[in-house]
Amino acid sequence: MTDASSSDKAVVTAAILVIGDEILSGRTKDKNIGYIAEYLTNIGIELREVRVVPDVMEEIVAALNALRARFTYVFTTGGIGPTHDDITADAVAAAFGVSIDHDPRAVAMLRERFSEADLNEARLRMARIPAGADLIANSVSKAPGFRIGNVHVMAGVPSIMQAMLDAVAPTLKTGVKMLSETVRAGLKEGDIGSALGEIAKAHSDVSIGSYPFWSETGPDTNIVVRSREADKLEAAMAAVKAMIASHSAGAGEPH
Amino acid sequence: MTDASSSDKAVVTAAILVIGDEILSGRTKDKNIGYIAEYLTNIGIELREVRVVPDVMEEIVAALNALRARFTYVFTTGGIGPTHDDITADAVAAAFGVSIDHDPRAVAMLRERFSEADLNEARLRMARIPAGADLIANSVSKAPGFRIGNVHVMAGVPSIMQAMLDAVAPTLKTGVKMLSETVRAGLKEGDIGSALGEIAKAHSDVSIGSYPFWSETGPDTNIVVRSREADKLEAAMAAVKAMIASHSAGAGEPH
Repeated sequence: MTDASSSDKAVVTAAILVIGDEILSGRTKDKNIGYIAEYLTNIGIELREVRVVPDVMEEIVAALNALRARFTYVFTTGGIGPTHDDITADAVAAAFGVSIDHDPRAVAMLRERFSEADLNEARLRMARIPAGADLIANSVSKAPGFRIGNVHVMAGVPSIMQAMLDAVAPTLKTGVKMLSETVRAGLKEGDIGSALGEIAKAHSDVSIGSYPFWSETGPDTNIVVRSREADKLEAAMAAVKAMIASHSAGAGEPH
Repeated sequence: MTDASSSDKAVVTAAILVIGDEILSGRTKDKNIGYIAEYLTNIGIELREVRVVPDVMEEIVAALNALRARFTYVFTTGGIGPTHDDITADAVAAAFGVSIDHDPRAVAMLRERFSEADLNEARLRMARIPAGADLIANSVSKAPGFRIGNVHVMAGVPSIMQAMLDAVAPTLKTGVKMLSETVRAGLKEGDIGSALGEIAKAHSDVSIGSYPFWSETGPDTNIVVRSREADKLEAAMAAVKAMIASHSAGAGEPH
């Protein structure tokens, strides 16, 4: 009956915090940002910022506190393994000002995978969980992630991170889903930029993106219109398509 | 004669600022972060932070000002094309508090590619450069990037960004190169975590990273030792290798 469902209060936002020297050195190429970005878009959560920081306590704490204050959710990846350079759990505890210790529930999960002989001090590090956190199941290799406040702490290994994200997703509140439609212009970006800018001004309540690419026949442009409201998206897309048609028709005419 | 060349003052740092809604929506998967990270490592510049922000003026300005104050260099990618959603140049001008206008040098570069008829208002947007900036040549499609202060503004299209980075690299001061050596342990990360932590403590002046992976024969671990000083790296790596050898020998023995 009203537009309330599509107003700003229905927008659920998120940030990703990638933790790891190996990403910053270029040794490991991140595969999680793009995956999580697409995943969140598909369930109606708007990713607003990403940061990558090194395995340094103060850097993780500062970034986490900046992000968790601004967005509905924060998702971290990396730094929850069994070695000395895995300091994410300690950094999260420090950011929230809570204690951290071996969590009996997490130890029990590790026991499903490791014998008592194999459950050494290093592996038990993976059961160190900040006080008050809920565990995130790890269907791949047992060692859990955790949620505390609006922060979800996940593994850096993509297959494990993906399993954790599947475990977390049903617990997240989701916003009105962003709708998106793409049209291939068959024209160079620079040929339609001014006209597209006019359309963007006239339809300021939708987001219009322009993405050039090289097709088999030369430079081309994808135009993406995004909105949470189908009718507004449709109106803007109609304007975009009419503009493309007039440009394509005009392209063959003499000047 | 002295260690001065390897002291902290020789460390050159950097941050990357990726600008673009399409990265945050997951529609486009970033390929620039990993490329720049590896590139900087190879020329002795230490990447310390990455941020991804949307095509929103205040967000770009805030992130840019935070990063340029902290690191030797900032490299931005994205948002310098011919359409209304390309607002990076304006945001950089705003961050530096300088004016922005069509730059005759940039217009001349565009004229190398476009006829007067094709050099329309949209394409001329790509010649809008903040006052006081130096241009960064674009050998792929002419429209230049630019440098202002310690900030290098580059295209988002990977092939163009890579050409710009090649153009910029000779102008950068570089630090003492970070040396890196990797050994494959042939052991599970959790089996060597405690011993590796002891080595990291004893060799606190080097960086020791532990990266689990799945090999054809099961779980395995790469251990990476990094330092700017060859002798320190060598000493830590010797300790790591001795630890691995003792573990491998011990693995066959009865408990």
